[in-house]
Amino acid sequence: MGNIVIGQSGGPTAVINSSLAGAIHAAKQMGIPKIYGMHYGIQGFLKEDLIDLGEEYIKTREDIEFLKRTPSAFLGSCRFKLPSIEKDPQMYEKIFAILEKYDIEYFLYIGGNDSMDTVKMLSDYAAQHNKPQRFMGIPKTIDNDLPIMDHTPGYGSAAKYIGTSVKEIIRDNECYDSPIPSVVIIEIMGRHAGWLTAASSLSRGDDCCGPDIICLPEVDFDMDAFYQKIHELAKVKHSIVAAVSEGIHFADGTFVCEMEQENAKLDAFGHKMLSGCGELLANKLMQESNYKVRNIEFSTLQRAATHTASIIDIREAFDVGAYACKKAVAGETGKVVTIQVPERDPYQVSYGLADVHGVANVERKVPVEWITEDGLDVTPAYSAYARPLIAGNYVPYYVDGIPHHMVLKR
Amino acid sequence: MGNIVIGQSGGPTAVINSSLAGAIHAAKQMGIPKIYGMHYGIQGFLKEDLIDLGEEYIKTREDIEFLKRTPSAFLGSCRFKLPSIEKDPQMYEKIFAILEKYDIEYFLYIGGNDSMDTVKMLSDYAAQHNKPQRFMGIPKTIDNDLPIMDHTPGYGSAAKYIGTSVKEIIRDNECYDSPIPSVVIIEIMGRHAGWLTAASSLSRGDDCCGPDIICLPEVDFDMDAFYQKIHELAKVKHSIVAAVSEGIHFADGTFVCEMEQENAKLDAFGHKMLSGCGELLANKLMQESNYKVRNIEFSTLQRAATHTASIIDIREAFDVGAYACKKAVAGETGKVVTIQVPERDPYQVSYGLADVHGVANVERKVPVEWITEDGLDVTPAYSAYARPLIAGNYVPYYVDGIPHHMVLKR
Repeated sequence: MGNIVIGQSGGPTAVINSSLAGAIHAAKQMGIPKIYGMHYGIQGFLKEDLIDLGEEYIKTREDIEFLKRTPSAFLGSCRFKLPSIEKDPQMYEKIFAILEKYDIEYFLYIGGNDSMDTVKMLSDYAAQHNKPQRFMGIPKTIDNDLPIMDHTPGYGSAAKYIGTSVKEIIRDNECYDSPIPSVVIIEIMGRHAGWLTAASSLSRGDDCCGPDIICLPEVDFDMDAFYQKIHELAKVKHSIVAAVSEGIHFADGTFVCEMEQENAKLDAFGHKMLSGCGELLANKLMQESNYKVRNIEFSTLQRAATHTASIIDIREAFDVGAYACKKAVAGETGKVVTIQVPERDPYQVSYGLADVHGVANVERKVPVEWITEDGLDVTPAYSAYARPLIAGNYVPYYVDGIPHHMVLKR
Repeated sequence: MGNIVIGQSGGPTAVINSSLAGAIHAAKQMGIPKIYGMHYGIQGFLKEDLIDLGEEYIKTREDIEFLKRTPSAFLGSCRFKLPSIEKDPQMYEKIFAILEKYDIEYFLYIGGNDSMDTVKMLSDYAAQHNKPQRFMGIPKTIDNDLPIMDHTPGYGSAAKYIGTSVKEIIRDNECYDSPIPSVVIIEIMGRHAGWLTAASSLSRGDDCCGPDIICLPEVDFDMDAFYQKIHELAKVKHSIVAAVSEGIHFADGTFVCEMEQENAKLDAFGHKMLSGCGELLANKLMQESNYKVRNIEFSTLQRAATHTASIIDIREAFDVGAYACKKAVAGETGKVVTIQVPERDPYQVSYGLADVHGVANVERKVPVEWITEDGLDVTPAYSAYARPLIAGNYVPYYVDGIPHHMVLKR
């Protein structure tokens, strides 16, 4: 039996290390002799920057648990797309030479759409050249935009963070009885898919009405309707909260965040300012009304908040890592692990495999039927879909009052 | 025995409702017949907008626990300063008429510096006019800037949120091995006192170096030194994180966020943009370097994050609420509850009373000895001070995966 190498790629998430932990755990169970980690994904692999995970870091079951509670990419990540095989065959020869040098039989790569491209290219090359190594993709992305599967690991925890934080923002915003309406515009990640912004609706319950407006990039943004709804609400309530996706765009395709940036966005130093759509929308409202207006961006907080991770998400991330390892050993290659949900209530999950060609570089969006006709909210169908994914709390290891993380020391 | 009324005032915190819960709990224990809440602080009180808390909301011990897990001001808050007694004696007559009408003997007010002014004025008026009612202040503020006491309820939980989130941001930012440095500038609340920004250093431990730069408003901001340190760090590390207080200012007293706002800050609509200092500093760096630069503001998240509240903070907030109630019944008036820490390690706390005249409208700042000589960091003395205040995790009541809150329904 050969060795295994595992890499992490693309944007980090709260649970990508849980997938790494699952793969390591399964590799140990199956008696794989050496478990390598790629330092900074395929880029580090190309420099032979490999970490002996089993020897150096993950010696006990406690280490596995600690790794599961660590956000961001423990191994380091990269945003690197392999060139085509025709364009740069030397790079592929080099990769396979390194695989042979370290006697690596199994290559697992944890990532999103772009990262699955790496798995696709390498497994294609192996097939073309009769190479024995096996390549498996492990899904990961807060964006939840991988096709074929029901959802992706990383999404549930990001959604839980967003639902929790949006509710806290609403609670905070409604505490004054001011005659002047107080408006908060929250900008949430998601350039092309609105999954994360839709998660703001998870703040809804019998204790919270949730955001008053939710705008996803799946439909064109109607700025007039947006402001009109705010002004109508301002007549009947003093706290108004809107959640908008960073990728909202007008009917002509222009991103809201890009509008007229060229001619007007100058800062104190005469420099062009790069603003998000939330800031622009808030600023316009501030200037055209007497409302109190605030703009909040979750920024990288939403993808690193392991302190409020979902147990379901952590567990599934772990499981897909383990599943990929077991299936690779069983002979599979050129596949990505999928998550299916045969029953949503009570929630049941099943794992499977799909050809990586169907996943790489394809984006899955929020169904437009889940967006209300005015384009300013999501329907309850979204909540029925997402609610099971945020269930349960995963308590970090706290040291001195702050969550403790496992750290790679190089 | 007369009745009691409790109000919340000023900015909300993660634990202000815990003080309310403590006061209600003590009032019930002491057999006070009616426990009223002021809807929207003294402003609501003036409209006789009173809530029968014992009758309507807090009937069981579970209700007490639920209230402790609810962020923001359950009763609603206000930012209202009473006019001087000389200027508007009618307002005082009205307040005391309402107190008499509802047979209220005890008046508890939970708030920060400005809110303590209300307690001061009312107790002064009562003394001048031989009124029997008793007025007590319960400290609350994430800003931690009340004098006389060691720290204020609300600070520990805000500090825990900031330390946790800063660590997650650092972890996220260091995940790529890019030749281009990645810089994050985090703006944290605190116009005159740097307590909250100093809390970014609580991310430090054997697993995290913490922010590379921390700037508090207690010392003048040296912009050249700030950027020089970033450029020096950029030579040796690829991830750089700076935490700056919203109130940082130049030696001439100008706030960094105010510099040249007049002539240059126009947005896409030709409107003046209101930016924070973090955004301005990030933008300047972005324009003058090839670094990847990101600006993150915690905004209201830092004062509402009950989902990661500190147990110590929740408990002390509860205790000072109960203490105020008991001491009022015992005959005290015109006082504010203080928190003292006779021993820091192991941590011990004691409660006491101080004359409200020494607390109202006075701000306590971070000692300058706790700021490093270059003005770009805090010393370990800060951590020794703050670490005990963030200890322990307080788990919310979760419903459908999201923390549930108690809500006032009117």
